[in-house]
Amino acid sequence: MCQLLGMNCNVPTDICFSFEGFAARGGKTDDHKDGWGIAFFEDKGCRMFVDDKPSINSPTAELVKCYPIHSTHVIAHIRKATQGEISLANCHPFRREIWGRYWVFAHNGDLPNFKLPPTQFYRPVGNTDSEQAFCLILETLRLRFPHKKPSLEEIYPTLREITDIIYEEGVFNYLLSDGEYFFAHCSTKLCYIVRQAPFAAAHLIDQDVSVDFNELTTPSDRVAVIATTPLTDNEVWTIIPEGKLLAFQDGLPLDL
Amino acid sequence: MCQLLGMNCNVPTDICFSFEGFAARGGKTDDHKDGWGIAFFEDKGCRMFVDDKPSINSPTAELVKCYPIHSTHVIAHIRKATQGEISLANCHPFRREIWGRYWVFAHNGDLPNFKLPPTQFYRPVGNTDSEQAFCLILETLRLRFPHKKPSLEEIYPTLREITDIIYEEGVFNYLLSDGEYFFAHCSTKLCYIVRQAPFAAAHLIDQDVSVDFNELTTPSDRVAVIATTPLTDNEVWTIIPEGKLLAFQDGLPLDL
Repeated sequence: MCQLLGMNCNVPTDICFSFEGFAARGGKTDDHKDGWGIAFFEDKGCRMFVDDKPSINSPTAELVKCYPIHSTHVIAHIRKATQGEISLANCHPFRREIWGRYWVFAHNGDLPNFKLPPTQFYRPVGNTDSEQAFCLILETLRLRFPHKKPSLEEIYPTLREITDIIYEEGVFNYLLSDGEYFFAHCSTKLCYIVRQAPFAAAHLIDQDVSVDFNELTTPSDRVAVIATTPLTDNEVWTIIPEGKLLAFQDGLPLDL
Repeated sequence: MCQLLGMNCNVPTDICFSFEGFAARGGKTDDHKDGWGIAFFEDKGCRMFVDDKPSINSPTAELVKCYPIHSTHVIAHIRKATQGEISLANCHPFRREIWGRYWVFAHNGDLPNFKLPPTQFYRPVGNTDSEQAFCLILETLRLRFPHKKPSLEEIYPTLREITDIIYEEGVFNYLLSDGEYFFAHCSTKLCYIVRQAPFAAAHLIDQDVSVDFNELTTPSDRVAVIATTPLTDNEVWTIIPEGKLLAFQDGLPLDL
């Protein structure tokens, strides 16, 4: 199984603190060492780093830990291979374009019985169940909304529908974003925290590192961090119920 | 105008030396400081770094200079904006998927009169003429070869045809690769060098840095480096004639 990390904020924020704890799980505090990746949206642009090395040994992960890239929508993943060999093509997140926007996807789980039906628009490059599931999501969205990007209220039921179909084939926790919308689906394990004023100090579980967000934020900042398991040991994380598909906007989960 | 750098080799090779000289042109020895990017293929996988900062000030460029990523197909670009504002979405290379492979494209030039006709498969995310031209290339290839990737001999005439159509609209030097094929089109300015045994020392034009390839290679290695202008001052670079579309394979230009 893999692990997921996501961030959605109302102002561009760096993910250095959370990523430091998360990256430690890629071979130090946990055994997810078959590659890792992270995608940062900056408006419609998207910066991606992927590596088939464990995140604890990766010079690129070192860069991401130290270089504060400010973004409102971030998706990261550390991999423990279930389907598909260890290779760059199989590292999450995956990215494709629809409606003139990049869409980014990362998956935690295993879909042993899932088979991608023939598609018109999207084909996997690697051989993971995850990338196949992503292709089916995009294909479904594109066939349903062929001309332009739908509103969040329009896209949600279609995403819900295709998620349920794939979800029947196994474990399907995922994060999906295009830099404007941000979706988190919990199949078995996913939680989140919303940080907003009054900010306090937080301490990582996986590294002995603390940060006082009060010193780094303004009172109107709001940041949601979504992760497979909590990243800090002195904050209360909310467990997302099994089967729930959440949309996040401006650092808050929406009830759709 | 921008600058291009490409590499095609018969064995995975790092581009640190060439990239060091090239990156200096992004604000130090030349004024291409509106962003940069580089794509490395590793089999079907593709590692991309893009940044809207000048390459001489970019922590990510620093990583690429120091971290020897071994690849057989590399495309890099430093940008001086002509069309499209300075933003991450407008940084080259651009990437899309066809036939289950990533295709990567970078452009040097300006296509003032080019307008992308309506497309079925590919839309630009940013607002450069370059990304529009890339979308038209992919759209044309996909419509002509809807089911599977054609051979190099099959794809070349179609690429030649669509290149000529776009080329009529302005300056259109480009590099295009999917990690197996590697194309270089010279509209006004592009040159290459093939390094093979007996290897010698090379000295950069843009930085006072030398490397003795003899110490770093085996006798069977062969590396083609393609660039807008020569990167070294003690080697003979071959100017690609205007209008020529070259395919490189295993470090050699092919006559198609």
